Amino acid sequence: MLAILGGTGPEGKGLALRLALAGEAVTIGSRDAARGAAAAAELAGAAPGAAIAGTDNPAAAAAGDIVFLAFPYEGQQSTLEQLSGSLDGKIVVSVIAPMAFERGKGARAVAVPAGSAAQEAQDLLPTAQIVAAFQNVSAEELQDPQIPMQGDVVVCSDHPDAKAQVIALANKIPHLRGIDGGALANAKYVEQITPLLVNINRIYRTHSGIKITGI
Amino acid sequence: MLAILGGTGPEGKGLALRLALAGEAVTIGSRDAARGAAAAAELAGAAPGAAIAGTDNPAAAAAGDIVFLAFPYEGQQSTLEQLSGSLDGKIVVSVIAPMAFERGKGARAVAVPAGSAAQEAQDLLPTAQIVAAFQNVSAEELQDPQIPMQGDVVVCSDHPDAKAQVIALANKIPHLRGIDGGALANAKYVEQITPLLVNINRIYRTHSGIKITGI
Repeated sequence: MLAILGGTGPEGKGLALRLALAGEAVTIGSRDAARGAAAAAELAGAAPGAAIAGTDNPAAAAAGDIVFLAFPYEGQQSTLEQLSGSLDGKIVVSVIAPMAFERGKGARAVAVPAGSAAQEAQDLLPTAQIVAAFQNVSAEELQDPQIPMQGDVVVCSDHPDAKAQVIALANKIPHLRGIDGGALANAKYVEQITPLLVNINRIYRTHSGIKITGI
Repeated sequence: MLAILGGTGPEGKGLALRLALAGEAVTIGSRDAARGAAAAAELAGAAPGAAIAGTDNPAAAAAGDIVFLAFPYEGQQSTLEQLSGSLDGKIVVSVIAPMAFERGKGARAVAVPAGSAAQEAQDLLPTAQIVAAFQNVSAEELQDPQIPMQGDVVVCSDHPDAKAQVIALANKIPHLRGIDGGALANAKYVEQITPLLVNINRIYRTHSGIKITGI
């Protein structure tokens, strides 16, 4: 069972949809159980036959074997402190790219003392196996099953087995490709690609992503 | 005339070769004029008929209409303070990605107080038109004219006309594509992609680059 915490936001909802379409059983978590259930019902309509349930974040975290963090960075510390008991020892996938938007200046990366949101999650959940992935994948594309996905998912972790499992999950979504991005320290660079892509999206009026050439 | 300061290093030498092969007249600059001339002679052998000269950095900076900074970050402040008179008002292309290497940990980005090497160059050369570009392009591929290039050159600047000229230069190198990466503030994210690619190179034993999908 995959759990997507913050699964009612655009990135989380899109990931839930694509992973469910790829055959995974998915539980969406939300701060509000009713909103989680409503998002699951909406996605079930777009993915007939898919196994998608919705509940609150604590119940989803408890149910998940692999738990995705897809809520905004601002909520990370309080959410993970609250849920740490449910996440001990589990594979926890950080999808978070801390960003701020300034009028007329576009997106910029928010500095994180730990280096990256994913490294901060590892500090907050020392027994979890944190894997950073999917931060650069367009939420708009993920949410529209008519659009073929494109680009690579750079996957960083200090836990090789967990990293391999998340690379395999990325490869299950058609047209995406999981790339071994090395240690969790590299998540910083991957997270910071997201504001660059957001700014490129505004220039080219597109939904951009990245592909690693030479592999 | 294009000038490549630090053009005896792998990235600078490779860029000089590819730009000369694309029909540009190139002058390589080095701390030592004799080494600059030797690098030019070596490249002229690989690119018969190309216009490649070599000299010291001050003479190259004075000769160039567009001047590339391709020396290591550590030398930037002293070099630019020395050359600022020659660079006033010119298009100055920062190729620099500040990196350090730790045994067993691979490459990491070096923090720059200005945000990025390119922003620091703009601070040091306030009347120059700084453009950040080519940081993610493999030096190994650039140096071997038998290898077709691949990937995108994300180009960031606060000077739109200068940015357009550098995008056009990138597009002159076969198989490379210049992408408008927005303001110079975005150079930070592009520079930090380089240590990520260096670490990916070690994992996959390749020369990686990036491509922006959706454009």
